Amino acid sequence: MQSEQFPSKLLEHAVSELAKLPGIGRRTALRLALHLLQREAGQTTALAESLVHLREDIKYCRVCRNLSDTDLCEICASPSRETSTICVVENVRGVLSVESTGQYNGLYHVLGGVISPVDGIGPADLEIESLVDRVRTGDVKEVILALNPTMEGDTTNFYIGRRLEEFPVKVSVLSRGVRVGDELEYTDEITLGRALTDRSPL
Amino acid sequence: MQSEQFPSKLLEHAVSELAKLPGIGRRTALRLALHLLQREAGQTTALAESLVHLREDIKYCRVCRNLSDTDLCEICASPSRETSTICVVENVRGVLSVESTGQYNGLYHVLGGVISPVDGIGPADLEIESLVDRVRTGDVKEVILALNPTMEGDTTNFYIGRRLEEFPVKVSVLSRGVRVGDELEYTDEITLGRALTDRSPL
Repeated sequence: MQSEQFPSKLLEHAVSELAKLPGIGRRTALRLALHLLQREAGQTTALAESLVHLREDIKYCRVCRNLSDTDLCEICASPSRETSTICVVENVRGVLSVESTGQYNGLYHVLGGVISPVDGIGPADLEIESLVDRVRTGDVKEVILALNPTMEGDTTNFYIGRRLEEFPVKVSVLSRGVRVGDELEYTDEITLGRALTDRSPL
Repeated sequence: MQSEQFPSKLLEHAVSELAKLPGIGRRTALRLALHLLQREAGQTTALAESLVHLREDIKYCRVCRNLSDTDLCEICASPSRETSTICVVENVRGVLSVESTGQYNGLYHVLGGVISPVDGIGPADLEIESLVDRVRTGDVKEVILALNPTMEGDTTNFYIGRRLEEFPVKVSVLSRGVRVGDELEYTDEITLGRALTDRSPL
């Protein structure tokens, strides 16, 4: 972008803050800021408040660690979900992806990431102990590992598999219909649905 | 994107608000919202406040109508700017673009758009009267029309040219080094600088 001298510190500050978001450069940030200036003030207030409320009031389900507005998330609280199966995902996008297949009616467990020595993320930084506790104390019959099919995902699968060896629980992974190196959220429902159906023992 | 059941109304609301921004779809909005959740809360507050402050406290310069933090913008208030030349631009991005050439030291006039019958924008919706007033009452020797080289820009040039006919002022337009149909803000400094230097009488 052309080097620039913003005519307003307010504009410059807003552009700088917007440009901190991933995938938003300064030119896009300027376009967004000018867009908000052209709309009624209520839209800006609504946007700002929704972000602050999200950040301040969001909870994590005490059972599955998924994002939730309540202490126990809707899925964990639902009487119609099948409680003997737990699907382990990296994050809320994993939950959304699996839910969108319409082929899963069990519960979830959100790890909050995957083991990644490069990024300094070890098992203790993830919700693995809480998963083991659920398997130990609950009536869990199967744990489905639905992490992204990356090296870190495989490492995490392997680690969780070993941690669950001592329990009488079936541990399975998504069938490799999911393309290696790809992200769950970019996989279409059909492929992901088949990967769920064809899941194989770890 | 896969159809989705957000686990949180707060998340859903934030995603909806973000997705109202131009060029931001729901998938990108979700990525931005989850990004903010992973960063410290201060970043979200800073972003939200900067947008609200921008929207609520921004002023428009009483002379040139450019965005400003003060009643009179920095350019209009500057003693080193040459006050006998006015460069007419569509919006603040036009000001930024012309400033970035480093080849212009006069004042500006921000129209707030261009005449566009399709969008229901006529001369009365733009800052044209205030431009005529400046020419009438000031020591203006030249008005440079630097609108985007579109049909609407040309129409607006023509209209302004006629309105200024009665005054002893030179009216010029940017040379057509600027590519027709393109936007000023995407023109490189060199081309835009030459277009300024080669400006021709209307």
